[in-house]
Amino acid sequence: MAPGKRLLNLETMNQAVLDVKVPILGSLWARAVEMQREINQGIVKPFGNITRCTFGDQQAMGHKPRTFLRQVAALCTYPDLLNTEHFAEDAKRRAREILKNLDNGSVGSYNPNYVSRVLPSKIATFLERRDGGVPANPRNIIVSGGMSKAILNVLLLVVNEEEPLRTGFVVPVPHYPLYGDAIALFGATKVEYVLDEERGWAVNVDRIRESLCAARKHCTPKVLCVLNPGNPTGHVLSRDNIEEIIRLAAEENLLLFADEVYQENVFAPGAVFHSLKKVLFEMGPEYSERVQLVSIYSISKGISGECGLRAGYIEFVNVDRAVFEYFAILKSYDIPSIIAVLAMEVLVDPPQPGDPSYETFQAEAQNLLSTQLEKARLAEEILNRAPGIHCNPIHGALYAFPRIQIPERAVSLAQERGQAPDVFFCHLLLEETGIVLVDGTSFGQAKGTYHFRISLLHPLEELKSILEKIVEFHGTFLQEYS
Amino acid sequence: MAPGKRLLNLETMNQAVLDVKVPILGSLWARAVEMQREINQGIVKPFGNITRCTFGDQQAMGHKPRTFLRQVAALCTYPDLLNTEHFAEDAKRRAREILKNLDNGSVGSYNPNYVSRVLPSKIATFLERRDGGVPANPRNIIVSGGMSKAILNVLLLVVNEEEPLRTGFVVPVPHYPLYGDAIALFGATKVEYVLDEERGWAVNVDRIRESLCAARKHCTPKVLCVLNPGNPTGHVLSRDNIEEIIRLAAEENLLLFADEVYQENVFAPGAVFHSLKKVLFEMGPEYSERVQLVSIYSISKGISGECGLRAGYIEFVNVDRAVFEYFAILKSYDIPSIIAVLAMEVLVDPPQPGDPSYETFQAEAQNLLSTQLEKARLAEEILNRAPGIHCNPIHGALYAFPRIQIPERAVSLAQERGQAPDVFFCHLLLEETGIVLVDGTSFGQAKGTYHFRISLLHPLEELKSILEKIVEFHGTFLQEYS
Repeated sequence: MAPGKRLLNLETMNQAVLDVKVPILGSLWARAVEMQREINQGIVKPFGNITRCTFGDQQAMGHKPRTFLRQVAALCTYPDLLNTEHFAEDAKRRAREILKNLDNGSVGSYNPNYVSRVLPSKIATFLERRDGGVPANPRNIIVSGGMSKAILNVLLLVVNEEEPLRTGFVVPVPHYPLYGDAIALFGATKVEYVLDEERGWAVNVDRIRESLCAARKHCTPKVLCVLNPGNPTGHVLSRDNIEEIIRLAAEENLLLFADEVYQENVFAPGAVFHSLKKVLFEMGPEYSERVQLVSIYSISKGISGECGLRAGYIEFVNVDRAVFEYFAILKSYDIPSIIAVLAMEVLVDPPQPGDPSYETFQAEAQNLLSTQLEKARLAEEILNRAPGIHCNPIHGALYAFPRIQIPERAVSLAQERGQAPDVFFCHLLLEETGIVLVDGTSFGQAKGTYHFRISLLHPLEELKSILEKIVEFHGTFLQEYS
Repeated sequence: MAPGKRLLNLETMNQAVLDVKVPILGSLWARAVEMQREINQGIVKPFGNITRCTFGDQQAMGHKPRTFLRQVAALCTYPDLLNTEHFAEDAKRRAREILKNLDNGSVGSYNPNYVSRVLPSKIATFLERRDGGVPANPRNIIVSGGMSKAILNVLLLVVNEEEPLRTGFVVPVPHYPLYGDAIALFGATKVEYVLDEERGWAVNVDRIRESLCAARKHCTPKVLCVLNPGNPTGHVLSRDNIEEIIRLAAEENLLLFADEVYQENVFAPGAVFHSLKKVLFEMGPEYSERVQLVSIYSISKGISGECGLRAGYIEFVNVDRAVFEYFAILKSYDIPSIIAVLAMEVLVDPPQPGDPSYETFQAEAQNLLSTQLEKARLAEEILNRAPGIHCNPIHGALYAFPRIQIPERAVSLAQERGQAPDVFFCHLLLEETGIVLVDGTSFGQAKGTYHFRISLLHPLEELKSILEKIVEFHGTFLQEYS
């Protein structure tokens, strides 16, 4: 048997996987890793090091974790520390409470009761507070070890290959690439609706209606994905816009999939996060008892940015108990890390006024949001000063997604190289400045428009310099290819 | 729109999910949870509480975690502790080294470099030591946040729906139910080979050959799953038996999937764990350069039993780089918890002689294995004393899987109730004694034979009493239905 004939090879493997594209594993990221290796080997570049503006990874960029959260997590991990003097009294109290709820008091047990009963109750209380009293049932909440897997599981539940037409997932353009990947993996069909860049990336329901109408000829649209705040757009949906979306979902009988992981990252003055669930319930029983909604939350973002711990939850609204049970079965292959989910408990039930850790906790969270606002303002200002770049106001999340002009000659040249024009631009920028962005193509964009996504996470002065370099490079690029 | 017409319901959802059966979500477990609730509400039962013998969850049953591991994890979670006196010097040194390898020194970052470069190198060194120098390439190792999801991902990679025949997964009977679930989810075909209970649960390759021959009429067998040590059997494969399996895989062009998560839980005198990879390489290039092998490891078992942390890794042998890259893409949706994977670093690179924590670490690990041996001996002795129960020698893992006699009249009665006979037995036992086992049907068993799985994790005296109650109940059961 020749090595080429080994059983598992590119021809024999699952062909659906070939269509999955994770941007961080794309050509830009690969080249950046290669360049960093060259730099480490002593090869001199026109810049010092690679500058990564790709991830929404706050702590990697210097944001400090919440002290209270880490204290409780360390105490639960090594409970001997409960007898020491190095912790706030309320951190010790909380750790003792959590340990009492764990099987044999150990984070090393599977802890099904803590994960599927204790924690959902606390989350339900948190949601009721968030939504001004709209009821939340702990039995409709599933705790998960990270949202990527959880999103895939929800979407997997909806695909039904026994129906004559494929299942349609309706996704915004641009969107976080995970949704496109789910579609590729599960043999679903992508139905796109283009966000209204001219109106600050709002959702235009008429466009969704048009897309649905065209799509129904070849698939059965079932899920309408809404990202609020938007990734990569940073747009926060208005209450009116959410009402329109819900009415549409009711009329068209779509399950609403609300990616609300950035719900706490809303910082622009006047911008308010309205959960889809709250609006749904405020619209009355005609909607609140009919429309199916799935909403997701993650500790990787929000006021803690604990990407490395891996925890989140999903709330199901109006999903039959029997279907929910099957989701729980799928989910049983995604057992969460107990240290991560107890950290989530701390976030949904934070220190209260009067507790020793209250002031610090609040100050840390407030500092994170005000810093994000400063960075967003800085990005808007520098990017919009440049001819050929336009950046909508950023209300929330962690990114800017500016539109960039790419001259005709650069477009042709990119096509010759088999690259999308914005990928071409990002590669040139990388070679010249060492700055790694994510190209707009990875998120999708209206035909003939070009964008990139930049994480606004570097310290302020550093971010200023990065943005100025990008703007300067784009200016030269415009001249060179015009 | 009536509630029954909501978009997502049992009829419209993914029908493949309906075939997934997680035993802990089956009727026995559901009844046990219900009974515990009744007890909590004050309803008196003929026994005190529910006794769970279902999970392989060592820490829930009182096993202590490894001190060094938890110290390092707590230090990395809350690095302020590095300035305190509560830790062994080598724990602090290790924590400092790990933090140096983390992005911005934080467990709260995604840490792609630590997860995909630093840790695989350490694991490769561990594997080379384990396998007496057989080379391990870090580039073939993937770190994962728990093995359940990782196993599903590997199997997903192999299914190819574009081929005319379905993909066959060849699994032992009995087997850990996850494999059956993967088959249901991905539309593969299950090809079974019955383990040789008369020869202590050894693998009989002639039976595999027969199964393959019959299966090739309706599917393409691609993956041969081997569990060593066996779950639920506790059997450890002999070197000769492994050689036979490898020769068969080569002849039949099958990918070997080695579930070796219990590799450190080998305790019977004379029993030795041989990794499939080591044997493969010792068989010479004819095999070592051809046979494709995937092997998995988990910190949930072994000498730490850290089920609640969620970490493991997969080693790929003879899998083309391009295919491996696609697996990495699938895996990018299973980002591990950094606290969990740094705990795995400690386990693959434990304290060495002379280090302050060495003696304690060794003593804790040794104690765990010698306790398991005692419990296995106790189980064999008590179970084999009973007429109508037979338990093979237990060499490793955490369970006993005895064969039980079920009288004809009980079999008929069970059939009337629509239950498998062993499920029927387990339900009666549960009602009478509060003891929850897993029925043999969940793992599969030779036609006409009946079994149950019991975790051997309760403290020794308690386990003795549990086993005696089961044996006594089975005696009464035999009398009653004979």
